[in-house]
Amino acid sequence: MTPHDLTATEALAAIAAGRLTAPELAASCLERAAARAPVVRAFTHLDPAQVMAQADAAQARTGALRGIPVAFKDIIDTVDMPTSYGSEIHAGHRPNRDASVVALTRAAAGVVFGKVVTAEFANRRPGPTTNPHDAARTPGGSSSGSAAAVGAGIVPLALGTQTSGSVIRPAAYCGVHGFKGSWGEISYAGIQLTSATCDTVGLYARSLADIALLRAVLTATPFTGLAAGNVGGPRIGLCRTPFAEQAEACTHALLDEAAAACGKTGAQVADCTLPPRFAQLADAQRWVSAYEGARSLAYEATVHRERLSPDILEGRIRDGEACSPELYRASARFGEACRIEADAILGGYDALLCPAAPGEAPPGLAFTGNAVFSTMWTFLQVPCVTIPGARGPAGMPLGLQLIGPRGSDRRLLEVAAWVERAVFG
Amino acid sequence: MTPHDLTATEALAAIAAGRLTAPELAASCLERAAARAPVVRAFTHLDPAQVMAQADAAQARTGALRGIPVAFKDIIDTVDMPTSYGSEIHAGHRPNRDASVVALTRAAAGVVFGKVVTAEFANRRPGPTTNPHDAARTPGGSSSGSAAAVGAGIVPLALGTQTSGSVIRPAAYCGVHGFKGSWGEISYAGIQLTSATCDTVGLYARSLADIALLRAVLTATPFTGLAAGNVGGPRIGLCRTPFAEQAEACTHALLDEAAAACGKTGAQVADCTLPPRFAQLADAQRWVSAYEGARSLAYEATVHRERLSPDILEGRIRDGEACSPELYRASARFGEACRIEADAILGGYDALLCPAAPGEAPPGLAFTGNAVFSTMWTFLQVPCVTIPGARGPAGMPLGLQLIGPRGSDRRLLEVAAWVERAVFG
Repeated sequence: MTPHDLTATEALAAIAAGRLTAPELAASCLERAAARAPVVRAFTHLDPAQVMAQADAAQARTGALRGIPVAFKDIIDTVDMPTSYGSEIHAGHRPNRDASVVALTRAAAGVVFGKVVTAEFANRRPGPTTNPHDAARTPGGSSSGSAAAVGAGIVPLALGTQTSGSVIRPAAYCGVHGFKGSWGEISYAGIQLTSATCDTVGLYARSLADIALLRAVLTATPFTGLAAGNVGGPRIGLCRTPFAEQAEACTHALLDEAAAACGKTGAQVADCTLPPRFAQLADAQRWVSAYEGARSLAYEATVHRERLSPDILEGRIRDGEACSPELYRASARFGEACRIEADAILGGYDALLCPAAPGEAPPGLAFTGNAVFSTMWTFLQVPCVTIPGARGPAGMPLGLQLIGPRGSDRRLLEVAAWVERAVFG
Repeated sequence: MTPHDLTATEALAAIAAGRLTAPELAASCLERAAARAPVVRAFTHLDPAQVMAQADAAQARTGALRGIPVAFKDIIDTVDMPTSYGSEIHAGHRPNRDASVVALTRAAAGVVFGKVVTAEFANRRPGPTTNPHDAARTPGGSSSGSAAAVGAGIVPLALGTQTSGSVIRPAAYCGVHGFKGSWGEISYAGIQLTSATCDTVGLYARSLADIALLRAVLTATPFTGLAAGNVGGPRIGLCRTPFAEQAEACTHALLDEAAAACGKTGAQVADCTLPPRFAQLADAQRWVSAYEGARSLAYEATVHRERLSPDILEGRIRDGEACSPELYRASARFGEACRIEADAILGGYDALLCPAAPGEAPPGLAFTGNAVFSTMWTFLQVPCVTIPGARGPAGMPLGLQLIGPRGSDRRLLEVAAWVERAVFG
């Protein structure tokens, strides 16, 4: 294995044992980036000298991410790299400080490897990134570059954000692990605000152990290794969601296989049907994120309106400007009531097993895919994780999504490790 | 009346009628600022040429705030004025865009009059601002400059923020109207994030009509004048809160007088005793805002720790670093449950009548006062408004606070107008 193929956990062990140095790891990742850049186009900023300088410094330090390269979605502020939020309006902008997640990464001796492509203001208009498994297909969005950079083997870790389905779906499309935690646990300071109700930081990695490690760093909480052994015979709810008809046959088949594998390995698997009114969560999420999102983009919408894309002007901004305060409040209150109800439902399981996306990444780069299998969970503010490992009819990655009760983030990752072993061996 | 003494509503009418021009208003406010500056010390940035240029432009425009000067707390980003968040770490920083509230003010032809003093990162360490009614006393905080600039007659409108009690209390101390809306209605984009759960934009004015007008601009919703006539015989709950023993005698006396005046004028006044567990809201708010706040300041706490004050290092940051994820989650969940319960309780009233602060502004500038009469309401995410008009034993302003159910912001202002007329004539 070349260093760039290692997970963060593997690389950390190799560095700690003296079998690898942080600069060697960084050099390997840079080499991989150069090889894949012309096709994958994941980065908006990547300066090898800047990477190597950090790696040299990290080698002499200690920290939970000592020398590990981490890529950041370009709506996340970095003091030493441009941050343009996926918009020409802010091309070349250099923030005056790091976002909290960047600062915590650096404090843990991680290497800020570069900035990766985001859809315009983390909404819909895609950047140039391609799917690392097929350059003719979308990597998903809006955290396109984050998922593609990890999927292409360039970096072991990347950060994205999810307001609708911007983390879980790209992870599924690119064949990597994606994680969106419970709302509030990771600070959004220094990240482009869209919707205070929905915005959540997302993590990308090539193993669940790495997700758990990165999550500990970003929540500034103690880390102890993932112990899948803590999980015995988990209670799994097979939940196709109220939007099941939007999932393709390959996704239903994968869910069936995964449920069967879990059952065979000792899980208690039961169908979980959500209350019918949960079908309204998708619309409610749309109104809340649009009301809040249009107002969060007031500067751009009033001063630079002509430089916004039709995707956002005729999408979130039009919706948000049309959303009455009454509709906003009713939608927000509905979400809150469903959160309480979901606590009770999810409390009956260790995790729900759900689609991560309708199917494989769609062909073409113009459409980043259907977010319907994420929006309701984002709005419910529950932790979600994408488990990759399957393939669809076109040979593209397919993902499973596991959902836990709010606040069960750490436990969800342990259950996910159990499920991953049961399903993919 | 000199123009700087006019409310925004009065000034707008005068400008519309041709009796006053935006530049005349701006010049009057600048003159007042110059006269009061040596004592009140409310501004961190005030450039007369910049103000006059905006006023000249506003005179030729239309808009809901045409020519009205608005001051902004210095944790709110402005593209053409420095923003330093009350910290030497960011001295002279010039943001690349306006916060949403600034952009919406400008789009309504308002004049961004300048930046006003904030406590360090909207926490505790005060700036140099004094109370406009007694320079030996605090104006309150953290929105010290906002309350003082309006109270000193320099600007008719100002913006602040409230994470604990940073809007309602300074308004009471400075004898002006303060308003904190329901969480989520006004975007926090471009404002220093502390606690995603608690942070709320606050408004300052010298009349409730002005508050209603400014609120419509900042929520990007239609404005129709306040109609106190809509309110007849409101149901008022006299609520001394679980922290009643922290209120001084003058505050209890004011509440008694106000309740009696409301009753005489036709209100149904009843004592409202909150559930005993609501006494725990103050601690829960402290843990949630500290957990989130310490993480939001990760950049400063890791890169510039020695430039943070002991107030914040040994206060919110120490608390937040000590707060376990379990305590954070339990506290956040407790707040959510109380919000639902408060909806039911508050639904039985048009408004609760409460203390806005323990009493008059305390002597000295080192301590900005006790926030206990705000923290629980902030955490409950309900709308709150300060009604000034009374005086305490030292001749300093005393305020009443009215609380409405979540989402009743507009109605609360109408009820407040009724109460104000009943109590203060």
